[in-house]
Amino acid sequence: MRTIEWRDGAVFTVDQTRLPLENVVLKIETDEQMAEAIKKMRIRGAPLLGAASAFALALTAYHSKAGSKEEFFSELEDSATMLKKTRPTAVNLFWAIDQLLSNARAFSGKLEHLKSDIIKEAKTFADNDAKANRAIGQNSSKLIDSGDVILTHCNAGELATVEYGTALGVIRNAWDQGKRIKVFATETRPKLQGARLTVYELKRDGIPVTLITDGMVGYLMHSGCIDKVVVGADRIVKDAVINKIGTFTIAVLAKEHKIPFFVAAPKSTFDFAHKAEDIVIEERNPNEVTHIGSHQIAPKDTNVFNPAFDITPLKYVTAIIWEGGVYYKEDFEGFAAFS
Amino acid sequence: MRTIEWRDGAVFTVDQTRLPLENVVLKIETDEQMAEAIKKMRIRGAPLLGAASAFALALTAYHSKAGSKEEFFSELEDSATMLKKTRPTAVNLFWAIDQLLSNARAFSGKLEHLKSDIIKEAKTFADNDAKANRAIGQNSSKLIDSGDVILTHCNAGELATVEYGTALGVIRNAWDQGKRIKVFATETRPKLQGARLTVYELKRDGIPVTLITDGMVGYLMHSGCIDKVVVGADRIVKDAVINKIGTFTIAVLAKEHKIPFFVAAPKSTFDFAHKAEDIVIEERNPNEVTHIGSHQIAPKDTNVFNPAFDITPLKYVTAIIWEGGVYYKEDFEGFAAFS
Repeated sequence: MRTIEWRDGAVFTVDQTRLPLENVVLKIETDEQMAEAIKKMRIRGAPLLGAASAFALALTAYHSKAGSKEEFFSELEDSATMLKKTRPTAVNLFWAIDQLLSNARAFSGKLEHLKSDIIKEAKTFADNDAKANRAIGQNSSKLIDSGDVILTHCNAGELATVEYGTALGVIRNAWDQGKRIKVFATETRPKLQGARLTVYELKRDGIPVTLITDGMVGYLMHSGCIDKVVVGADRIVKDAVINKIGTFTIAVLAKEHKIPFFVAAPKSTFDFAHKAEDIVIEERNPNEVTHIGSHQIAPKDTNVFNPAFDITPLKYVTAIIWEGGVYYKEDFEGFAAFS
Repeated sequence: MRTIEWRDGAVFTVDQTRLPLENVVLKIETDEQMAEAIKKMRIRGAPLLGAASAFALALTAYHSKAGSKEEFFSELEDSATMLKKTRPTAVNLFWAIDQLLSNARAFSGKLEHLKSDIIKEAKTFADNDAKANRAIGQNSSKLIDSGDVILTHCNAGELATVEYGTALGVIRNAWDQGKRIKVFATETRPKLQGARLTVYELKRDGIPVTLITDGMVGYLMHSGCIDKVVVGADRIVKDAVINKIGTFTIAVLAKEHKIPFFVAAPKSTFDFAHKAEDIVIEERNPNEVTHIGSHQIAPKDTNVFNPAFDITPLKYVTAIIWEGGVYYKEDFEGFAAFS
C-alpha cells in the first residue's frame, strides 16, 4: 500500500508515531481527524502533508450536504483554515490546499460534479507526488556513485511522501541501479524520525544502514566516512532550504569537509515568492525534548527551546534534485525566474 | 557534599545514571565495585574518573592483608590493571593510577605506613582536583563578559569533577562574579549528560539554562543566539582535544560563525606525549543509541555506530583554560614543551 490512500470515502495511512514497534493503519474519515493526525505528527513529511491536506478537502467534499456552491465553498474554506493551522512551516500543505480551492472556484459545472471533481483532484495530487519522487530518483542517477557512503537526516522517505521518497528516493534509485551504497542515518532528535522511520524503511528494503546520533556527524565526516549528504526539504525559498532541525548543522559540517550536500524535493516544496526571513519556524512542545516516549530525561520545569526546522542558506547546498532535473549551485540565481 | 568523598574506609558518590529523577548516594567499599561503577557510568567525567581511580587504589590499600611490600604491590598492580580496562579514553584515570603507583614504589617507609600514605595521597588527589577547578574558574574571568550567552556540551560540571566543575566552573565563576550570563545546554545523546546532569546542576544553582537537542546548535548560532562555547575535555593531546562525542560538530559550527570555542580542563587531562592518532576512541554498547532508558526507539537488530568521544583539532580551539592560566591559540605550539 502507498503511505496514504483514498478508499471508499475514507483515507488510509500508517500511524508514524507508532513505528517502528507497531504498524498501525489509521482510517481517517473527516477533515477534523486529518487535522488532528497532522498536529500529532501521526502524518508527517512535507510531500505527504500536501497529499494529506488534499485528501482532507476531499473528505469535506465527500461528506458535504451543502445545497449551494456558496455554502460548499464556505465549508471548504472552514476546512482549509483548520488545516492551515496545524503546522506552519512545510509549504506543500498550503500549496495543495490553495491549488484545490482555486480550481474549485474556477469550476463551472454543477455542485455534485464539483464535489466528485475535488476527490478526483486529490487523488491526482497524490499520484503526482508519487511520480515526482520517482523522477527525482532518476534525476539523481548521475550524482550517486557505486561505493558511496551517504548520510541522510530525518526521514525524507516513502513515509514522508505518497510513495518512494525524496532523499530516500535518491538512495533507492541508486540501490535499484545496482550501485553498492551504504547509508548513515541520524536519529534526528527530538522526534527520532531517523531512528524510527528511515532505519525501518531501509532495513525493510535491504539497503545497508547504520544509525548514529546527531552529534556524531562531525566525527564521521572528519574520519572520511561520508561521501555525500542527501536530505529532503520542508520548503525551499529564494535563498534557503528549510528542513528538519539539524539539517543546517550537517550542511556546515559538509562544507567544512568539502562533502557534496544534496537536497531532494518536489516542486510542491518550492516557494520562490518568499525568503528565509519571511518563514515562520514552528516551535513545538518542550515535552518532545524533556521526554522520550513516557520516559522523562530532564529535570522538572526545564526551560526548553524546540524549533522543528532550521534554515540552510543556498550557499551551503551543492544541488537541488527535483522532478524537473537538477539545479546546481550555479543555477540558484535562476530561482528568481520562478518567483 | 563533594561529588566523591572518602569516609571511614569507604567512598561515597552520587549515582549519575539515576539523576535527575533520583539522587542516590552510592557507598563503594572495594576496588571491584569502583571499576563496575565506572563501567556502568554511575561515575563519569574525566577529572572525577581520576579521583575515583585514586580512591579505588586507596580501597585496595585499606583492605589489604598483604604481609610484604612485594605482595602489596602485586595487589595494587591487579587493581590498576582492572581499573585501566574500564574506560580507555579519559586520560585522568591512567594519570591518577600511574602517579599513585609510582609514588608507592618510591616510598621508603614501612608497609603499614605505605598503605595509609596511599589513602592520604588519594585524598590529596581529590583535593587538588577541587582546587584546580576553582583556579580554572578564576583564570577564565577575563574571557566571559556580562550578557554572554554560553553554549556548553555534555556535563563538565561539579558532577564530572570532585567539586565546582571545569566548563561549568567557568560558568559558575562568571555567575558568582555577578555577570548576567545565560546558558544553552545540549542534551548530549546518547547518554544525555547535558539534559540530565548539566541542566540539573545549573537549575539547582539558579543559573539560567535552556535545554536544546544536539542538532539545534547550528540554528542557534546562525540566529546569533550564542556568544561563546565552553566545553570540558577527556584528554588533550599535542594536536587535539578529545571530548564527548558531538564536541567536534560544535567546534566546526563555532568556527563557521566566528564564535570563540573554549576548552576548560585541568592539567591532569593533558597528555602531550601523544597525538590524536594514538588515542583509542571508546565505542560503547549499541543499546545506548537504540534505547532510551527501557524505551526502544529503533527497529530490532539495527546496526549502530556509537563512539563515545570525538577529536577536535587544536585549530578549532580558541583557548584552553587550565589551573595554570590560559593557553591561547597562538600558544598551542608551546605544548611541545610539555611532551
